[in-house]
Amino acid sequence: MAENNLVNVAVVGATGAVGEKIIEILEHKNFPINEIKLLSSKRSAGKRVVFNQQELTVEEAKPESFSNIDIALFSAGGSVSKKLAPEAVKRGAVVVDNTSAFRMDEDVPLVVPEVNEDDLQSHNGIIANPNCSTIQMVAALKPIQKAFGLSRVIVSTYQAVSGAGNQANQELEQQTRQYLNNEEMTAELLPVKGDEKHYPIAFNALPQIDVFQDNGYTFEEMKMINESKKILHAQDLAIAATCVRLPFFTSHAESVYIDVEKGGLTVEDIWSALRGADGVILQDDPNTQTYPTPLNASNKEEVFVGRVRKDLDNTKGFHLWIVSDNLIKGAAWNTIQIAEHLVMNKWL
Amino acid sequence: MAENNLVNVAVVGATGAVGEKIIEILEHKNFPINEIKLLSSKRSAGKRVVFNQQELTVEEAKPESFSNIDIALFSAGGSVSKKLAPEAVKRGAVVVDNTSAFRMDEDVPLVVPEVNEDDLQSHNGIIANPNCSTIQMVAALKPIQKAFGLSRVIVSTYQAVSGAGNQANQELEQQTRQYLNNEEMTAELLPVKGDEKHYPIAFNALPQIDVFQDNGYTFEEMKMINESKKILHAQDLAIAATCVRLPFFTSHAESVYIDVEKGGLTVEDIWSALRGADGVILQDDPNTQTYPTPLNASNKEEVFVGRVRKDLDNTKGFHLWIVSDNLIKGAAWNTIQIAEHLVMNKWL
Repeated sequence: MAENNLVNVAVVGATGAVGEKIIEILEHKNFPINEIKLLSSKRSAGKRVVFNQQELTVEEAKPESFSNIDIALFSAGGSVSKKLAPEAVKRGAVVVDNTSAFRMDEDVPLVVPEVNEDDLQSHNGIIANPNCSTIQMVAALKPIQKAFGLSRVIVSTYQAVSGAGNQANQELEQQTRQYLNNEEMTAELLPVKGDEKHYPIAFNALPQIDVFQDNGYTFEEMKMINESKKILHAQDLAIAATCVRLPFFTSHAESVYIDVEKGGLTVEDIWSALRGADGVILQDDPNTQTYPTPLNASNKEEVFVGRVRKDLDNTKGFHLWIVSDNLIKGAAWNTIQIAEHLVMNKWL
Repeated sequence: MAENNLVNVAVVGATGAVGEKIIEILEHKNFPINEIKLLSSKRSAGKRVVFNQQELTVEEAKPESFSNIDIALFSAGGSVSKKLAPEAVKRGAVVVDNTSAFRMDEDVPLVVPEVNEDDLQSHNGIIANPNCSTIQMVAALKPIQKAFGLSRVIVSTYQAVSGAGNQANQELEQQTRQYLNNEEMTAELLPVKGDEKHYPIAFNALPQIDVFQDNGYTFEEMKMINESKKILHAQDLAIAATCVRLPFFTSHAESVYIDVEKGGLTVEDIWSALRGADGVILQDDPNTQTYPTPLNASNKEEVFVGRVRKDLDNTKGFHLWIVSDNLIKGAAWNTIQIAEHLVMNKWL
């Protein structure tokens, strides 16, 4: 870190959907940057990006790119992180990694700052940023867990295509135009780029995000399950997920059922736990049709919660509707929050 | 009924989304019709509709329209049914009503033929067709309930706009074009025509279907809860629903968690219960990315089930993904199935 408390930052995957958001937020939040380096694959290298009125050239990410870097923010896919994150650490950088490469490693903290900031302290050079659908859920559940205990979570997701990158946005837009023009829709990417079958996402719903695991769950579903337990420090939490891709561009929504440990609670009790919570905004009033939606949550950094209802049969059961921008709190903003906490607490 | 076993049929709401489907299916299935009468509101009366190569004129529905009618199929909204269904019964017709007007009346059978055909026998002139989102769920859950018992259901829905009628389809299409043209989206109908606030549905998700009840649930959610108990003859079933409107035209999808009563079951056990079930098609193979989607289920009359998974914590818990065309099995086809069973069994 430079004497002036400013840091040298590298953004890896600078031309991707999340990388673009990271650059936008670093600028907007006046992150204490001495120098910034924008890195990408060989294919995207050479692109020009404006940052704080300066035109920068994106360079190909290589091991030696990380000399003299204090913080490297990775979001260029798991294989890039696996290869280059250790190289960055070797050269003295702290890595905040936005892929699934290191999330479940025991010596890698997996952090949502509002939930488990203290876990940052024990880092060994790499900190993992959780999956988008996990972040917004644990941000909303942590205050409830803290106040009343939490024993069971059953979540069904409603996920935006941008979680699969800029190409997925283009595919949704193209298919939508094809459908409205009575042309056949061409599906080449979703649900999973590397998988054999592709289904149209426009005017459809695909119950597959990421590849299938041996137990019949998708990797996205297992990420939500395993990451939530790690972040909430709750290995015994019973948790299940069904993850579904839907035809909208931005923000994930989640229909979440929970069992709390404390009995006799009312909707008002859940509301008061959520009202005081960092980074959470309660939008819940049936009388005025107030509830969060993906469109309204887009381009905002908070996690929005509404439709809180008491289960009609289980006295410890509640239902919630949780919405947040998957590229901001679900990715770029949470990554930068982690970097901010590292700088502020001098945990670099 | 005429001597030749042919019946005189009236379709009320003949120009609506469901009415159009009813006419199409009556023709396609060669329903044993002697005479057909197409009825509508005053506003839509006079429209011309072709049925079996004959051009028919839609007439305004009035009490005297039902003289000499054997079966009247109503889908013109609850207030029309409340007013005219008793008039039709008074004139000797049996009414199959596709609105929520009579569904919870104790002396009105609420029927999905594959599930509770026998309930038809006790009718007093009116039979209710369940809500679209209910029909497909109970059709898939009945074989599981029958084989293994069922104690708990938690459902999150993914519902098509056509459930809100032809105007909602037009609104989705218009908003989609506006969005793609970078114009502001105009929202005038969804989520609920008569409610104060309207939100865009294009590229969005609305966690409100029908009006809010005093307990914070929407009427759609309470319909799913109460109707399922009645159809499954399971007043003690613990059941909760979260209903969400999404930007596609046809077919509802449902992410369903269930607790069965029998222990030690595997996914294969659930599969075998579903495989033999009337009107249900299993589409479930992670290895070949086989699962139902709304686009693939559209214009089909069956209920499709996939993504069957065993819960990772609760040994009696399973997850399912249930998809069906909301206008066909969810409305028109179930209505006509009821009429067919009435005719076949001479229960008119």
